[in-house]
Amino acid sequence: MTERRIDPAGPDEPTDEGRQLDDLRHAILDGDGGWLRAKLDEMHPADASDLLEQLSTDDFETAVEMLGGALPSEILIELRDEYREDAVDMLSDAAVVGALDDLESDDAIAVLEDLDADRRERILDEMAPNDRALLEANLLYAEKTAGRLMQREFLSAPEFWTVGQTIDFARDNAEDLPTDFYEVYVVDPMNRPIGYVLLSQLLRTRRDVGLADILTDIQSAIKVDMDQEEVAYQFQKYSLASAPVTDGEGRLVGMITVDDMVHVIQDENTEDLLALSNVSSADGSDTVWDSVRARAPWLAVNLGTAFVASAIIALFEDALNALVQLAILMPVVAALAGNAGSQGLAVAVRAIAERELDGPAARRAIVREALTGLVNGVIFALGVGLIAWLWFGDPLLAAIIAIAMLASFFWAGLSGILVPLSLKRFGADPAVASSVFVLTLTDTMAFFSFLGLASLVLL
Amino acid sequence: MTERRIDPAGPDEPTDEGRQLDDLRHAILDGDGGWLRAKLDEMHPADASDLLEQLSTDDFETAVEMLGGALPSEILIELRDEYREDAVDMLSDAAVVGALDDLESDDAIAVLEDLDADRRERILDEMAPNDRALLEANLLYAEKTAGRLMQREFLSAPEFWTVGQTIDFARDNAEDLPTDFYEVYVVDPMNRPIGYVLLSQLLRTRRDVGLADILTDIQSAIKVDMDQEEVAYQFQKYSLASAPVTDGEGRLVGMITVDDMVHVIQDENTEDLLALSNVSSADGSDTVWDSVRARAPWLAVNLGTAFVASAIIALFEDALNALVQLAILMPVVAALAGNAGSQGLAVAVRAIAERELDGPAARRAIVREALTGLVNGVIFALGVGLIAWLWFGDPLLAAIIAIAMLASFFWAGLSGILVPLSLKRFGADPAVASSVFVLTLTDTMAFFSFLGLASLVLL
Repeated sequence: MTERRIDPAGPDEPTDEGRQLDDLRHAILDGDGGWLRAKLDEMHPADASDLLEQLSTDDFETAVEMLGGALPSEILIELRDEYREDAVDMLSDAAVVGALDDLESDDAIAVLEDLDADRRERILDEMAPNDRALLEANLLYAEKTAGRLMQREFLSAPEFWTVGQTIDFARDNAEDLPTDFYEVYVVDPMNRPIGYVLLSQLLRTRRDVGLADILTDIQSAIKVDMDQEEVAYQFQKYSLASAPVTDGEGRLVGMITVDDMVHVIQDENTEDLLALSNVSSADGSDTVWDSVRARAPWLAVNLGTAFVASAIIALFEDALNALVQLAILMPVVAALAGNAGSQGLAVAVRAIAERELDGPAARRAIVREALTGLVNGVIFALGVGLIAWLWFGDPLLAAIIAIAMLASFFWAGLSGILVPLSLKRFGADPAVASSVFVLTLTDTMAFFSFLGLASLVLL
Repeated sequence: MTERRIDPAGPDEPTDEGRQLDDLRHAILDGDGGWLRAKLDEMHPADASDLLEQLSTDDFETAVEMLGGALPSEILIELRDEYREDAVDMLSDAAVVGALDDLESDDAIAVLEDLDADRRERILDEMAPNDRALLEANLLYAEKTAGRLMQREFLSAPEFWTVGQTIDFARDNAEDLPTDFYEVYVVDPMNRPIGYVLLSQLLRTRRDVGLADILTDIQSAIKVDMDQEEVAYQFQKYSLASAPVTDGEGRLVGMITVDDMVHVIQDENTEDLLALSNVSSADGSDTVWDSVRARAPWLAVNLGTAFVASAIIALFEDALNALVQLAILMPVVAALAGNAGSQGLAVAVRAIAERELDGPAARRAIVREALTGLVNGVIFALGVGLIAWLWFGDPLLAAIIAIAMLASFFWAGLSGILVPLSLKRFGADPAVASSVFVLTLTDTMAFFSFLGLASLVLL
């Protein structure tokens, strides 16, 4: 284990991890619960959860069973959502209550979210009234908001305290403080935050200095109902390690830490990447059925748009009957224009996510994409025209495909930026559905311009 | 300003930001350097840099000029790469030296990276020998490694110190400590880290307790030559706010903080998303020429693959001449199979990035993708077959397109997972080039199976 930590696994050393997994499988086969418990105890919870996630679902369930329903809470919370859900399903109510007691409130909420309403109610009933009230209050906030993500444990101090008083308070109340935090929130008598003092600042300041003299203004302004994406943006913008969360009256009610925001950032990035490829969700442990459900609906939409393209081609049946070269060349126009549109779309979706397309920047981007479409259009119109000429020896056909390429590229450039910007304006996610729109627009243009021109000129 | 901070701009309130930008533009037009300086001073550096980035390049350069070459270093470092490069180009050598003195070493390195070799040399010559030596040492590490990203400022303490001694040391050396840090590294006499103590832990522990009694083992093992992607992975896995960096002899030489890792995570995500859409790089301030250069090479590759598809279609010229319906329907097969392949590819690329496809998980994913391809293949084979039958009233044609769909979907499922896994195995980035491969494979299969079957059966 130590060896693996010191030399994190590169592609060439799967042996150590592989051996661990083999050992684990053998222990499960042998029903050796003692070995399993000792092994998990000796590992870092993040490593232990990684190892457990390598098991098949059946083996994983056997392992949880062997632990007598007592999976350590710090491992439970490190598990990926679907494994955690599985594990929680198998734990006894008492074991879940025990885990909730151990965990900080944001992690406890994550576990509670996995439960169906009945069981959640039953388990909350078993908890101490105070803990229960806090958790229930958090559950009242909508999913994916700051209120759901925040933890109730943090350190705050009145502005008239000195550094010394704050440190003494922390020492006297060590048990009630969160394991890890990075700053002290300075609050007024109404419990509204008026600033913060970094622990690194507190540490280097003499005991008799007042907090009021060293506090920093709070840049972020995170309210309980703020969307997690906006919270993550504030963390990135101001390079925060943690931030205070306030309720409707501006009172300090919780704290969000950067590790949770890193997860949000990863989730949002995954969503965008999958959405652009027409997948509604994906996860390492998905079954075939999960995958079909996440993909078939978008394929069905694509089925519709593909037949729209077919219908356009069918309009030019006579041209196709007269000249088989049109059928041979038309996918080239559609493929390249579609690719150009997807390129612009990816750039736009990314820029929107990073908030680079606000205000005048959007106008600049539209102009740039239109011109990029034109420039690439000229380059590839010449390229495709030349190849078509050499292949079929027909300069007129070459000219027609070149003009169709240029028109389709310009159109692709505009579609790639205008579709996501319009979706955003209407409050929709610019990544979802946009690639279907863009490809339909470019296909339509490609087939229509190429076959239409050919009908006009060649027939 | 305060108003904007308290209510971060939602989509409905561009007025405040718009007004600020207008004010700024007027000040630049009027050459009002005093107002500009006062405005930037009053804002948080992250907000100030955001505002400056909204300016056109010309206005931005005028603004930097008006500041008399003295752009505050905390704003300079917040600017996006391309704006920072621009600004540094315009600053006098003395102003750059001043900024480097102000900045912590990781930020100073970011500025030095923007300079050409000559100017970098000249500016390093002007610096204090000590600072210079540290920066030059960092520059020796390869780009995108821990050595480049780390800062040289951190707090370490020998293991025999008590909490009280550590706090006293921090108070006595307040000036030399970084502005913000989250933990104290406990080192042995050879300066090798043997553990860390979180500041939140230090704060709540009594003065007479020894560091050795409260230290935690270091989970991450970040060496100076570790790739930034691996470093970011360690931060995510162990939920780190900061981590120590060691040299080849295991001695503590620097510290990396989570805010830098958030940037790395965003950059890696952007790279993947763009690569999947065949864009080699993109940035908000890209010119048309930048965009063409980032996209045309991939379009050229696509040009080649598109003509491969054409060549396959050309093999079946007789069939197309005999039955125009084939030309009308063939894009449906290619579009849907291509979409199915892209879906699988996106899921695989994402899973590889999140390290979910190591070991046995890869085999499970291959089976799942093949089966998903089959299931969706059956569904859409029936769908497309039915529509083709209704449209053209030819059951044989409907059967042919249905079989071609099924074969293409199965093939798409396999391509979508095997292409990125193979690229990864050969040490290449699984996101780069993979979509071109997958689409070429699915196009080839789609045209070949549909037109080939049609030739065999119908002619």
